[in-house]
Amino acid sequence: MERRYLILAPHTFATRAAKTAHGVIAYSRDVTVAVVDPENAGKCVRDVLPYLDSDAPIVADVAAGLVHKPTSLLIGIAPQGGGLPPEFRAEIRVAMRAGLEIVSGLHTIIGDDPELAELARTHDSRIWDLRLPPAAPLFSGAAYDIEARILLTVGSDCAVGKMTAALELTRAARDRAVDATFVPTGQTGIAIAGWGTAIDRVIADFAPGAAEQLVLEGERRARDLLVVEGQGGINHPAYAPVTLALLYGTAPDALVLVHVPSRTTIDGYDIPLLGYRELIGTYENLCAGVKPAKVAGIALNTKDLDEAAARAAIEDARQETGLPCDDVVRFGPHALYDAIAPQTQKSAVRHA
Amino acid sequence: MERRYLILAPHTFATRAAKTAHGVIAYSRDVTVAVVDPENAGKCVRDVLPYLDSDAPIVADVAAGLVHKPTSLLIGIAPQGGGLPPEFRAEIRVAMRAGLEIVSGLHTIIGDDPELAELARTHDSRIWDLRLPPAAPLFSGAAYDIEARILLTVGSDCAVGKMTAALELTRAARDRAVDATFVPTGQTGIAIAGWGTAIDRVIADFAPGAAEQLVLEGERRARDLLVVEGQGGINHPAYAPVTLALLYGTAPDALVLVHVPSRTTIDGYDIPLLGYRELIGTYENLCAGVKPAKVAGIALNTKDLDEAAARAAIEDARQETGLPCDDVVRFGPHALYDAIAPQTQKSAVRHA
Repeated sequence: MERRYLILAPHTFATRAAKTAHGVIAYSRDVTVAVVDPENAGKCVRDVLPYLDSDAPIVADVAAGLVHKPTSLLIGIAPQGGGLPPEFRAEIRVAMRAGLEIVSGLHTIIGDDPELAELARTHDSRIWDLRLPPAAPLFSGAAYDIEARILLTVGSDCAVGKMTAALELTRAARDRAVDATFVPTGQTGIAIAGWGTAIDRVIADFAPGAAEQLVLEGERRARDLLVVEGQGGINHPAYAPVTLALLYGTAPDALVLVHVPSRTTIDGYDIPLLGYRELIGTYENLCAGVKPAKVAGIALNTKDLDEAAARAAIEDARQETGLPCDDVVRFGPHALYDAIAPQTQKSAVRHA
Repeated sequence: MERRYLILAPHTFATRAAKTAHGVIAYSRDVTVAVVDPENAGKCVRDVLPYLDSDAPIVADVAAGLVHKPTSLLIGIAPQGGGLPPEFRAEIRVAMRAGLEIVSGLHTIIGDDPELAELARTHDSRIWDLRLPPAAPLFSGAAYDIEARILLTVGSDCAVGKMTAALELTRAARDRAVDATFVPTGQTGIAIAGWGTAIDRVIADFAPGAAEQLVLEGERRARDLLVVEGQGGINHPAYAPVTLALLYGTAPDALVLVHVPSRTTIDGYDIPLLGYRELIGTYENLCAGVKPAKVAGIALNTKDLDEAAARAAIEDARQETGLPCDDVVRFGPHALYDAIAPQTQKSAVRHA
């Protein structure tokens, strides 16, 4: 299905809370025809977020967006805890009555909401709950036999750009004629790629098994390289279990560390981010106990710095770690890809 | 409710697979009136597992167990993946038709099974699904303000005795007139204590939040000391995310490491256990990034060793780590408790 998205992000479009909106606009092959945000109505996306480079109009409400002929309403925000903001209901109702598909990555499963499910039936409107996971088996170890190389992005925190780094590195690999696929593990990645599982929504015991299923599916899609979208951060008090489920469940051969140099505390908590060496040591130490994998390079997200400051931050990271480092959005992914991926070798599980 | 348990563990009662049965017989205040295991029918529990010190009879099937007037049928096994073995259905039907309550810690929720739920309604039989979790919020940080000291058992693997160590240390604390409570985090602990949440059953994003709710509830039950039952092991490829959810979510002030000296590989996987120093380093390093906690002592489970070998293993662990070490079942929990708990101080979250 070719989608034409109307994206719902009222009062949040310009902020990090709307990261689902930003990811889909930047990377989905589906067109975004308009964004709902009364604060910026009358402008276009580029006026508010120049880096997104889109002239989609911003409108005041869903009703005003219908003239742009959307097929689907995308909930564009990823709030902490993932509940449905009550003020979104009226807008979702308008979209459903107009026959639009509802695409949501919230933890609140729209299809389980009695009122909205009934409305969908009445108006023949589809619901695509991106985060609704399939039943997953326990981790089996089958991932250890995958022949394609597996690269996992890991972060200093949530919402630093792990999905973006994985998408950009996949693009660079394809430009180098490598048969590569992006492996989506969260709601925005799923919306962009059209497949995947939101690992954070899986029952904890089965989260590594669900992650393993994704790389097994990835192997059916690409022969040479799987670039897995990471989640959370290893000292994030709420999301680290999901980080670890991906670290063990996807059996990576190498890691790419993603960080925002200006960020100093864990998003939403008064806990300091770990430094480069602590982060690299912690991730590599955990991998060493199961299947060894090293951090092969660092992808910095310098969106909020000017170019000189960005270059300085990249140089600092190189100096401190001795690893290749770049901003794969600002300067493109090819240099970082060329520095790390071809050198990545398959690694074996730590056998008894 | 005073329960009289008939425990279902056919062909597994003598093995580690029946750890739920063993835990309830050893630690529940509810009486076990009989165990179902055709392989050992005619014997009593003590004949098969002397350390359990119970003269409950072993019977061939549920029908034969009814003469002992049980109130409840407990599913006594904890299989990998937690599914309902198909051959258990007929026995559960017999129990339900006799009006028994069904107590199950499987991942398969008995109350969600159409046939068994219908049978329960027809025969006025209750179902207690130990693993069915309450809705949990995101981790909030409220656990950082708990005034009681928090001790968490962590392991080298799953099924090494973390629950038992936590129960024994709680008993020792109470013997020392400390207002202490055991905090149950898994199905057997819940059956024993009558409250708690199976963290492994919670949606991954909310697992630390569910763990936090448990220590907040623990603080309402005991003023001085919360002894939290750990889960899994930090290099267990399937269960480590649950381990980490407890490590961050319960905000411990100190850890007690639990290990079976004769165990060399992760249960069900060909991955070597980490050594004492690697384990201690990995757990302490993870805590250091959020809220520092040290391993204060080691509880060895030497059930499968003779006494001389047990004493040697304990001495080896003391030598290698410099920490207090004991087998809290074989030699009682008081010596280890006295060596670690009174020295445990509250620690603070790593603030920015």
